[in-house]
Amino acid sequence: MRIAVDVMGGDFGCGVVIEGIRLALEQNPRIQAIYLVGQRPGIEQALEASGFQDPRVQIHHASEVLTMEDRPVAAIRRKKDCSIVRAVDLVKSGKAEAMISPGNTGGIVAAATLKLGTLPGVERPGIATVIPAPENEFVLLDSGANIESKPNHLLQYAVMGHVYSREILGHKKPRVGILSVGTEAIKGNELTLEAFRLCEKIPINFIGNVEGHDLFRNRVDVVVCDGFVGNIVLKTCESLAKGMLTWLKAELMKNYKRQLGALLARNAFRAITRRMDPDGYGGAPLLGLNGNVMKAHGAARERAIMNAVRITSDTIQHRINRLITEEIATALECLARDKSQVAANAYA
Amino acid sequence: MRIAVDVMGGDFGCGVVIEGIRLALEQNPRIQAIYLVGQRPGIEQALEASGFQDPRVQIHHASEVLTMEDRPVAAIRRKKDCSIVRAVDLVKSGKAEAMISPGNTGGIVAAATLKLGTLPGVERPGIATVIPAPENEFVLLDSGANIESKPNHLLQYAVMGHVYSREILGHKKPRVGILSVGTEAIKGNELTLEAFRLCEKIPINFIGNVEGHDLFRNRVDVVVCDGFVGNIVLKTCESLAKGMLTWLKAELMKNYKRQLGALLARNAFRAITRRMDPDGYGGAPLLGLNGNVMKAHGAARERAIMNAVRITSDTIQHRINRLITEEIATALECLARDKSQVAANAYA
Repeated sequence: MRIAVDVMGGDFGCGVVIEGIRLALEQNPRIQAIYLVGQRPGIEQALEASGFQDPRVQIHHASEVLTMEDRPVAAIRRKKDCSIVRAVDLVKSGKAEAMISPGNTGGIVAAATLKLGTLPGVERPGIATVIPAPENEFVLLDSGANIESKPNHLLQYAVMGHVYSREILGHKKPRVGILSVGTEAIKGNELTLEAFRLCEKIPINFIGNVEGHDLFRNRVDVVVCDGFVGNIVLKTCESLAKGMLTWLKAELMKNYKRQLGALLARNAFRAITRRMDPDGYGGAPLLGLNGNVMKAHGAARERAIMNAVRITSDTIQHRINRLITEEIATALECLARDKSQVAANAYA
Repeated sequence: MRIAVDVMGGDFGCGVVIEGIRLALEQNPRIQAIYLVGQRPGIEQALEASGFQDPRVQIHHASEVLTMEDRPVAAIRRKKDCSIVRAVDLVKSGKAEAMISPGNTGGIVAAATLKLGTLPGVERPGIATVIPAPENEFVLLDSGANIESKPNHLLQYAVMGHVYSREILGHKKPRVGILSVGTEAIKGNELTLEAFRLCEKIPINFIGNVEGHDLFRNRVDVVVCDGFVGNIVLKTCESLAKGMLTWLKAELMKNYKRQLGALLARNAFRAITRRMDPDGYGGAPLLGLNGNVMKAHGAARERAIMNAVRITSDTIQHRINRLITEEIATALECLARDKSQVAANAYA
């Protein structure tokens, strides 16, 4: 498989991204080519500094970089030679089977949607983020691709999350829930109430509404919501988990007795820190596009990039997009059949 | 001061609520009367069983109870003699200065809004929940009173949260932010974008948008959002914090070495557990109503009820509602002045 990586958009410069790619290539013999997309002089310098040489690695020059301050859609139109756009172009032309970028999320969504388009039956792409919980892990989508969603979009997220959870995370029959303010079918806002009615009719394991309380209690595998709510939930969880660990550390350092205790129990803390570490996934796929696109964390370090490459490779291998297309088509057929049945009953 | 307490709606029965009231009365000599609202036989039995006698305590019989399964507005109309409605009636008639209920949130919001009405200039009440963070604590509102909000409502929440944070939590100049998906003014959905423009014009310390990442990093004192987002964020935080502590406990019990470490460091864990404990506040006020209404946790135990009584007493003493009315009026004047200036400029 061949993967394009935008090496420019990360917080730590292209050297860190390239080092992550080196680790990924060491582990993964299935990768035939990696295209490093970005400013050639900087990339060449980083390659030389690290002494990294691999015939599978090629540089694809792109003169511009999209910054976090750029307004996505306008910037994509203005900066035609930016690394995100060039990496998407490689997917569009078929030269690469997937692209990875740690850059501006809005820019990636805009470039990928404009250039690749969505899969048949999918109206909007959604970012599917895997969140670790004490006893399991769940996929949250959309975690920020689309701010204003419609019920149909949530239905499509439900199907896409179902496929992703089954194929990549190995849940045979993922429990899919809509994130709302109560578990009863009558609880929610206009968007979730209508999405609930749609999701009941399609062949997935739809468990109804889930609340914030359910997320970390192993009650749901796929959490469906609009991108505004999803982005807030994702960032709140990251902030709270990090805050609690920092806080615990500060409390443990307060006196010698506690420090000794912390030393004896250090493997317990390590187990938790490792599991909560966002670098374990390294990124989140943008599902629903006519091409494989992975958003890596802006603050991705070497290990995160390595893992983002690994997950991208899994996604390609499982042919997620073909499965999404098929299962979206089945879901839409179910809804159409239901609609015509309702109409028939009305005439009967 | 005189406070009505709905003793029926909690998860653990009226005995626990009554015991919490006993603790509160022991601490607080300013309380002149507590009305126990609910089914007389059960209350008398609980009082007798606990041997609790205090001349300040009076029973107010209410024959019905609103359950968690009841649809709020319909149930309030149907169950006219339920404890929530009767407790609100005591506030409306002036017999009590405040009411506390651990019952159905929707029922409390509906009964209080219908019977008491909102303060001048306030269109919707909001639940203001205090959330502990490592270095500070912040108020989240609305955390679930109103599911569908308008920009004006968020503006009013900003003013109410500002007053509450200043008066009850002692922040001289609380930092007020709108919860959104990016800190830039251009980030957000229709609701938050317009609310941002309004909040810029009023005399509070408005710091703009805040993200999920900012919540547990001591960057904001008042977090403004609609009740759908607020309820999800609140419950997600409770679920994650609880999940992490349970998980840590499980890891620490895995072998003798870790257990010994945990024993030595136990005060560090206790400090965190105590601070994260929702019983420390015991409840959240429903701000913006023409009367003081406190929602206690459904799962409130004795200590939570005691603290809910304490905070209610603080709220009465600080005359929060008078201050909210004044500062909402000032905010609305600012907006009106700004509007007429814009109009004048257009003609100039």
